[in-house]
Amino acid sequence: MDSEQLREYGHKMVDFIADYYNNIENFPVLSQVQPGYLRKLLPDTAPAHSETLEDVLEDVQKKILPGVTHWQSPDYFAYFPSNSSVAGFLGEMLSAGINMVGFSWITSPAATELEMIVLDWLAKALKLPDEFLSTGQGGGVIQGTASEAVLVVLLAARDNVLRRVGKDAIDKLVVYCSDQTHCSLQKACQIGGIHPENFRMLKADPSSDYALSPDTLSEAVSHDMATGLIPFFFCATIGTTSSTAVDPLLALGKIAKSNNMWFHVDAAYAGSACICPEYRHYINGVEEVDSFNMNAHKWFLTNFDCSALWVKDRSALIQSLSTNPEYLKNKASQGNLVVDYKDWQIPLGRRFRSLKLWMVLRLYGLEKLQAYIRNHIELAKLFEELVAQDQRFEIVTTRKFSLVCFRLLPLQSNEDYANKLNHDLLDVVNSTGKLFISHTLLSDRYILRFAVGAPLTEEKHIIAAWKVLQDEAATLLSKY
Amino acid sequence: MDSEQLREYGHKMVDFIADYYNNIENFPVLSQVQPGYLRKLLPDTAPAHSETLEDVLEDVQKKILPGVTHWQSPDYFAYFPSNSSVAGFLGEMLSAGINMVGFSWITSPAATELEMIVLDWLAKALKLPDEFLSTGQGGGVIQGTASEAVLVVLLAARDNVLRRVGKDAIDKLVVYCSDQTHCSLQKACQIGGIHPENFRMLKADPSSDYALSPDTLSEAVSHDMATGLIPFFFCATIGTTSSTAVDPLLALGKIAKSNNMWFHVDAAYAGSACICPEYRHYINGVEEVDSFNMNAHKWFLTNFDCSALWVKDRSALIQSLSTNPEYLKNKASQGNLVVDYKDWQIPLGRRFRSLKLWMVLRLYGLEKLQAYIRNHIELAKLFEELVAQDQRFEIVTTRKFSLVCFRLLPLQSNEDYANKLNHDLLDVVNSTGKLFISHTLLSDRYILRFAVGAPLTEEKHIIAAWKVLQDEAATLLSKY
Repeated sequence: MDSEQLREYGHKMVDFIADYYNNIENFPVLSQVQPGYLRKLLPDTAPAHSETLEDVLEDVQKKILPGVTHWQSPDYFAYFPSNSSVAGFLGEMLSAGINMVGFSWITSPAATELEMIVLDWLAKALKLPDEFLSTGQGGGVIQGTASEAVLVVLLAARDNVLRRVGKDAIDKLVVYCSDQTHCSLQKACQIGGIHPENFRMLKADPSSDYALSPDTLSEAVSHDMATGLIPFFFCATIGTTSSTAVDPLLALGKIAKSNNMWFHVDAAYAGSACICPEYRHYINGVEEVDSFNMNAHKWFLTNFDCSALWVKDRSALIQSLSTNPEYLKNKASQGNLVVDYKDWQIPLGRRFRSLKLWMVLRLYGLEKLQAYIRNHIELAKLFEELVAQDQRFEIVTTRKFSLVCFRLLPLQSNEDYANKLNHDLLDVVNSTGKLFISHTLLSDRYILRFAVGAPLTEEKHIIAAWKVLQDEAATLLSKY
Repeated sequence: MDSEQLREYGHKMVDFIADYYNNIENFPVLSQVQPGYLRKLLPDTAPAHSETLEDVLEDVQKKILPGVTHWQSPDYFAYFPSNSSVAGFLGEMLSAGINMVGFSWITSPAATELEMIVLDWLAKALKLPDEFLSTGQGGGVIQGTASEAVLVVLLAARDNVLRRVGKDAIDKLVVYCSDQTHCSLQKACQIGGIHPENFRMLKADPSSDYALSPDTLSEAVSHDMATGLIPFFFCATIGTTSSTAVDPLLALGKIAKSNNMWFHVDAAYAGSACICPEYRHYINGVEEVDSFNMNAHKWFLTNFDCSALWVKDRSALIQSLSTNPEYLKNKASQGNLVVDYKDWQIPLGRRFRSLKLWMVLRLYGLEKLQAYIRNHIELAKLFEELVAQDQRFEIVTTRKFSLVCFRLLPLQSNEDYANKLNHDLLDVVNSTGKLFISHTLLSDRYILRFAVGAPLTEEKHIIAAWKVLQDEAATLLSKY
């Protein structure tokens, strides 16, 4: 670690990355390489002797970048966005520069304290109840991903109930969610040893735009209790992965509460929109909730990874996840004077991730962040209008945020045929490299997802993407 | 995301970080702030309007850095090191610049393929058996931390055995390790629902320098089997946290294998040393092992986080951790043509972490990396000699790598008094801000740990640190 070499090479790398962004539209959005391409281009073993930065950067340009799918391209509309920004990038760089491991407060007090403060800021921007602030019994913590967020609260809830009913009752514990819930909850159940037959994915249907009906939850819980099972965890979603459906928190929360269930909300994608007053109503009822999660790395300009989790009762997390070996003991921790985030998460070590979220909030400010969200929603509306004007296509669900779910209509009304048609359209469109979209299934129909949210996307990119979709659709329809 | 703003601000941040390294010796190594210090310095809410980079950097300098414990300081000797290097820093920067989320191969083929290739490189540098290479049934994967590494293999092993004996037998599953094993294994057991009374921390005593005796393992396993329990997981350590003890892999592995147990090796810290031929013998017997873990972010110049995990049977991991929702399906995955690392880890999303390890291996090369390890071990030897020459102190365990365990001898032979004396010595030394060391307990004795491994540490820092220790010890002894 030579500071002058860091300076010299660091400047070169900054220029390399700035040039990458200048040229990003020249790459195919979805990488077009074949499986195993890179092994043919790199040696079998690590070099014995050092190589130059120039050699490495040339390899990045010629060998790595062709294998990258460019999530930051303005023509990226797949999955959900994964935002990068100047502020987020600077925060990551500073975190890598300081390179400390913040498992306990003492290992860098600023890392723990800035995280507490910045998550309080964000909680206030979302108008979350005061119980979620770090000044009370709850607080926020940055997890790597929404998967880790739902896992840690599931474990806290599991151990809470097992302390009450005895640990041998794990086979009786039941988890509820809608069938639109992200697969990470199912994975969390597998990890936590919840029996697969006690994982209830309740059907959410098109009549409610794929939101879970409180009656459905209520019936399932009553039925399970009648058979001696123990409902203990319910997860609702604000902005489901497939179609950004919004579960009704207030009504669902009352059911969860009256049945002593832990109520978690996954707002990984759509939580960001709730900093705008006109979208805040989607989380009405959040007062009923035990834990709330929103990914700042999706649609909030904070480079991956930064998943904000708030809980009302931090002691539940700590009881499940704490360790206290001698070699980590220190005065501040032993005196209960501080938060040690190691006890709120799966790993021991943790990076200084609050820096990037702090920089995003300070370098942009809440008003610009609101404008940023609104702009993407306007662009999604534009795309929706373009689709609606073309009778060969249909809009499948009501657009709420910046995702449009649509499909190409088949010439014959045969669903298998329709599914194949849209599957093929996805394939040819992504193969052009001009844009990248992804898909889902809704009520057994193959649906195309157009998710606006890359920071560089402008109106012209929406229009160009739509043109590609129309052209490829025309070619396909003429062939069938 | 404006590429010219990224260039301008990026250069400023590089200079800020280079200046930080130039001045790093001027900071107290261990932050001297009091709990809650930062809340007094920052506002209660996020700003509505954007602020300037100059304002933010000024706050970093004046408010954040005083709360940082400087892991990169040459006077940092606590815990284990967490290396930063120019190459590791550049890799982090490039990863943040590209900012893609590599859960599946298709989301950036280069991210998955470079990880496979680079972990093959590292496996070869460590002379791991070929079964750990990605070209067979096994392979390597980068986890965030050793905690996640041990958790995923524990889950794979748990589900393997439960498929055989039925999932209701979870209360019969037994995990073994020595009482010197890192606390992350105990946490993994808690997470995975292993009953606490079935977690066996077997006593490792000073006669073997805290290595686990094969007889002890063998007896415990036999006893449990006789009572109808099911031994299924054993973890050995190469370089324990307290004293870098080395468990004998070959003998222990034969016991694990003959009892159908999953055998995991935690070489988080000392694995790095095994790239040197003269230290490779410490992992003799690794052929018996099912999974092997080494943290490149500790002592291998790769910025945090980068924990390399190799398994012989990747299908075990995948069976436990895979999800396959419609919205993530794609041709390459469905055709089984590729590795999707989402199924080897807890989270769904993942960063492009192989870039930094690749850059470390290329910009330094294996010979320089070996020299780097040897230099730290020489510096630890120097410190050991200095301690040995001072009759007021004693060396407590045989030094194997770059950690020296020692203590100040009490004037009266009273262990409580000795413990308090060393506790106080730690406290006063760390309060000087001139160095940072940590402690442990070995056979109920309070021991000081001096871990060499920060990249900037030179002989003069060892000598200066020893001088502070001697001076503070003299003052303390005169008071008692």
